[in-house]
Amino acid sequence: MAYSQEIQNLIDKFSLFPGIGPKTAQRFVFYLLRINQGDLDDFIDDLEKIKSISFCENCFNFSSQKICPICQDPKRDKSIITVIAEPQDLMAVEKTGEYRGVYHVLGGLIDTVQNVGPREIKIKELLGRLKNFTVNEVIFALNSTIEGEGTMLYLVNLIKKDPQLNKIKLTKIARGLPLGGEIEYADEITLSEALRGRKII
Amino acid sequence: MAYSQEIQNLIDKFSLFPGIGPKTAQRFVFYLLRINQGDLDDFIDDLEKIKSISFCENCFNFSSQKICPICQDPKRDKSIITVIAEPQDLMAVEKTGEYRGVYHVLGGLIDTVQNVGPREIKIKELLGRLKNFTVNEVIFALNSTIEGEGTMLYLVNLIKKDPQLNKIKLTKIARGLPLGGEIEYADEITLSEALRGRKII
Repeated sequence: MAYSQEIQNLIDKFSLFPGIGPKTAQRFVFYLLRINQGDLDDFIDDLEKIKSISFCENCFNFSSQKICPICQDPKRDKSIITVIAEPQDLMAVEKTGEYRGVYHVLGGLIDTVQNVGPREIKIKELLGRLKNFTVNEVIFALNSTIEGEGTMLYLVNLIKKDPQLNKIKLTKIARGLPLGGEIEYADEITLSEALRGRKII
Repeated sequence: MAYSQEIQNLIDKFSLFPGIGPKTAQRFVFYLLRINQGDLDDFIDDLEKIKSISFCENCFNFSSQKICPICQDPKRDKSIITVIAEPQDLMAVEKTGEYRGVYHVLGGLIDTVQNVGPREIKIKELLGRLKNFTVNEVIFALNSTIEGEGTMLYLVNLIKKDPQLNKIKLTKIARGLPLGGEIEYADEITLSEALRGRKII
């Protein structure tokens, strides 16, 4: 005896969501069975609407237009490109309210374990942008993980070796103690980079 | 600067799911933006299909028919009713493969903090079943929490006070050390009930 087919199918679909197992998937379906019909309809409508969303042809952020609002914005400094792995990282940088340049979303990180090679992410497209437009600085804002560091080194190497590109300033975001971080529990690499990057107060 | 309206609306909807915050909601939306159109259509189809699901008029389990397959099953012993809070609890009992009686889904537990009173859950309907059908035993399989115990005591009291019903055998599932449980970390109540309920080996 299992759930009715309609319920089981939906549980199976939710189980494919990132970080969701069958138990949580089941809770989601029971939640949807409990909300009123109108709310379920609204949810389905909103799902229908995201079908129109694709990628910006320039920076590969999600966009409902060919070129996303950030790339279209005349107030944005096109000579500074921040390289990020995923659109959600773009959102995190935007929320600081400090950045006025543009972005390049790689759509992942080089990860040999997961079989993601340089050709699976938007590296060719990044080099194309660097060659076709005047770019003064590339800021790397990639995860502080083996994959993030590896992808950055791979890109830095490619750019530095290219006679057309090797004048571009390459930077990476600072490493240090996060807000609320405790020195006692900080790892040595973070702490030594935080020491080297110390600021006058 | 926020997400495009289509994305933000869907993030808001997912944020209403049980146990889901805005960060996870965002991950879900990005997951859906990444899967292919056919898979998204299938997901929407499955959501449309659960609209036909309502409650069994007898036991209040989810059902696409007026009376659910369990209540309709002639092999099920209708004289034993297990009282549970939610349909997912029914599934948990079914998975044991040991139970051949029927169920009564209360649709919640009495919870004064959350303003759930006896009238908000299917108590009247349970008493109706006990009066209109020959029931020999009511098994309480409610959470081992204040709300679960409180709801059970409330029901036991109602049934025992009723001259029509006070012959029905009332039982509750055993309390004890769960599989993998460690005695060192077991609370006193569990352990003392486990001791009293000890079995000859």
